[in-house]
Amino acid sequence: MEAPAGETDQWAPWRRRLTGSGLLVPMGLDGLWGRGDRFERIVEAVASALADLGADQHAERVRFPPVVSRSTFENSGYLRSFPTLTGSVHTFAGDDRDHARLLHDLAAGEDWTPSLVPAGTVLCAAACHPLYPTITGPLPAGGARWDVYGTVFRHEPSPDPARMQSFRQYEFVYVGEPEGATRHRDLWVERATTLTARLGLDAHAEVASDPFFGRAGRMLAANQQEAGLKVEVLAPTGPGPGLTAIASANCHEDHFGEAFGLRTADGAVAHSACVGFGVERIALALLWAHGLETDAWPPAVRSGLGL
Amino acid sequence: MEAPAGETDQWAPWRRRLTGSGLLVPMGLDGLWGRGDRFERIVEAVASALADLGADQHAERVRFPPVVSRSTFENSGYLRSFPTLTGSVHTFAGDDRDHARLLHDLAAGEDWTPSLVPAGTVLCAAACHPLYPTITGPLPAGGARWDVYGTVFRHEPSPDPARMQSFRQYEFVYVGEPEGATRHRDLWVERATTLTARLGLDAHAEVASDPFFGRAGRMLAANQQEAGLKVEVLAPTGPGPGLTAIASANCHEDHFGEAFGLRTADGAVAHSACVGFGVERIALALLWAHGLETDAWPPAVRSGLGL
Repeated sequence: MEAPAGETDQWAPWRRRLTGSGLLVPMGLDGLWGRGDRFERIVEAVASALADLGADQHAERVRFPPVVSRSTFENSGYLRSFPTLTGSVHTFAGDDRDHARLLHDLAAGEDWTPSLVPAGTVLCAAACHPLYPTITGPLPAGGARWDVYGTVFRHEPSPDPARMQSFRQYEFVYVGEPEGATRHRDLWVERATTLTARLGLDAHAEVASDPFFGRAGRMLAANQQEAGLKVEVLAPTGPGPGLTAIASANCHEDHFGEAFGLRTADGAVAHSACVGFGVERIALALLWAHGLETDAWPPAVRSGLGL
Repeated sequence: MEAPAGETDQWAPWRRRLTGSGLLVPMGLDGLWGRGDRFERIVEAVASALADLGADQHAERVRFPPVVSRSTFENSGYLRSFPTLTGSVHTFAGDDRDHARLLHDLAAGEDWTPSLVPAGTVLCAAACHPLYPTITGPLPAGGARWDVYGTVFRHEPSPDPARMQSFRQYEFVYVGEPEGATRHRDLWVERATTLTARLGLDAHAEVASDPFFGRAGRMLAANQQEAGLKVEVLAPTGPGPGLTAIASANCHEDHFGEAFGLRTADGAVAHSACVGFGVERIALALLWAHGLETDAWPPAVRSGLGL
C-alpha cells in the first residue's frame, strides 16, 4: 500500500524524480505505472538490443497475450509455488436482476465481486508459460529455441518502481536435452553480464532462489539454491536497499516437460531452461546509473542501445 | 465455446489456414491466440502506420499496462454497460492451511477460486481508460491529444479469430471542448477510411452502437445510435457473416469528464472523443483480403506498411 499521506518510504524521492520528469505516470495503485514516451523509448531500445543479442540462436519468435487459459496456468505449477502472486480473471455471467444487485453493491461502496464467476483465464505469470502447451510432437535432436516477449502479472504491490505488478519479460527459451538446457542457461548468464557491462551497469550474477510460498516453499527454495538451478543478474535499480534482479536464467529440469508432456527425439521427458529479462527493470537500472536525461548518457551506452 | 469434436463452425477452415501457416498459434481456449513471427510483423507494421497517421496531431505518447486499479475501472462506468466483458483480477491471500485447501481443490479437479480474494486490479477494457485519471489540472484551451497503445481484455470467447479475448488497441484520444471532440471523431473517421482504402480493404464507415448489457442497455444503444455518437469502420476479416469493426471512433460527450473530474480551461466539464483501431483485426482483414503470404500482397499495400 502507499505510505499514508505525509509519510514517505525510501523510494519516495526516486518516484518523484521519475514521475516529475514524465518517465513514469502514477496509476493510483502501488506497482501500477504508465510509461511516458521517453521511458517507452528506452524499453523499446532494450527489447531491440535483447533481440539482437539472441539473433544467432535461430529462436522461433512467438508472442502471447497477457492472459492464458486456466488449464495452462494450472499445469504450470504456479499455484503451488506462488499463490499470492497469482491473478485469476473473473467476470459477470448473470441476468438483469443479478446485474442490478452488482450495481447496487457498487453504488453502496460494497464489494461487487461476489457477483462474479471465473472467466476461464488467468493472468500470464511468466512469458514462457503459454509457450509450452503449444509445443507439439517430439523436439528435434539438440532441442529447440524460442524468442518470447510478453507482459506478465505478479500480485506484489510495492512502492518500489522496480517491482511492478505488470511488466514485460523478454525470454529466450530452450526445450530439449538436459545438457542443452544447462548450456542454454550458462550461455545466457554470460551474455546477460556482458550486456549489462556494455550498458554501464554495476551488475553481477549470483545463484538465487525463487520466493516460494509458505513452509514447504522454504525447502523448495533451499533445494533450488543448493542445486544451483537459478542464476540472477543483479543491479541497482534505485535507492535500494540491495540490488534487484534484472535478468534470471533458470534450469527447470523436467518440470515443464512433465507438466506439458514434452518429449525429446528419443522419447525422454524434455528438460527446459529460460532466461528472462525484466525490461522495465533494465530501463530503471539505466536511469539510476546514468541519470534521467537519455541524451546525457555515456555515448557507448547510447550507441549500444541505438538511442 | 469450441465446437464439439467432429463438428465445425463457419470459421473452422479459416482458423486452420491461419494456424497451419503459423500466423496464429492456438492456446486451447476460444479467443486466445499466440501470434507467430509473420503475424506479429504485420501487427507492428500496422501500429507503425497508425503512429505515422497521427504524427501531425502533437499527441502525447503514453503507454499503460493491461491492468488498471479497481477504482479506475469502477469510475469508467464499464461495469454498468458491459459487465459480461469484464475481467476482475483475484489472488490468494491466505496462510499455509488455506493454501493446502486450495491445492486439494486443484488436485481434486474442483474449483479452487473460492480460495481467492480481489487483488485490487481489473483488466483494462479500453486503451484510453487508464489515461483519464492521470490527467491533472484543467485542459489547455483547444483541448489536448494523446497517443495510446495497449492490450485490452474482453470476455467474449468466440471461434472467430477476429474476436479475441485479449488484443491490442491503438487509440488517439482528445479531451477538451465539445466541438473539439466532434472534430476529432470526424477527422479520424475520415483518416481511418482513407487508410483502409490505401491498404486495399473493402471497408466503409457506419454509425453504430455498443453492445450494452441487458434491458436498460437496449435503450442506451438506441440513444447512442440516434445521437450518432459512435462510428465504426467495418471490413471483412474472415468468412463472415457480415463485417467486423476494425476501427471505432466515439464521442463520449461528458461521460469521462464527469467520471474523472476533467475540466476545460474555462472550468466546464470536459468532453472527450477517441478513435480505437483493432490492430489484430486490421492484420486479419489484410490477410483475408490479400492472402496469407505477405510477400505476395499488392506492392502499394506492402510499401504503405513498410513490409
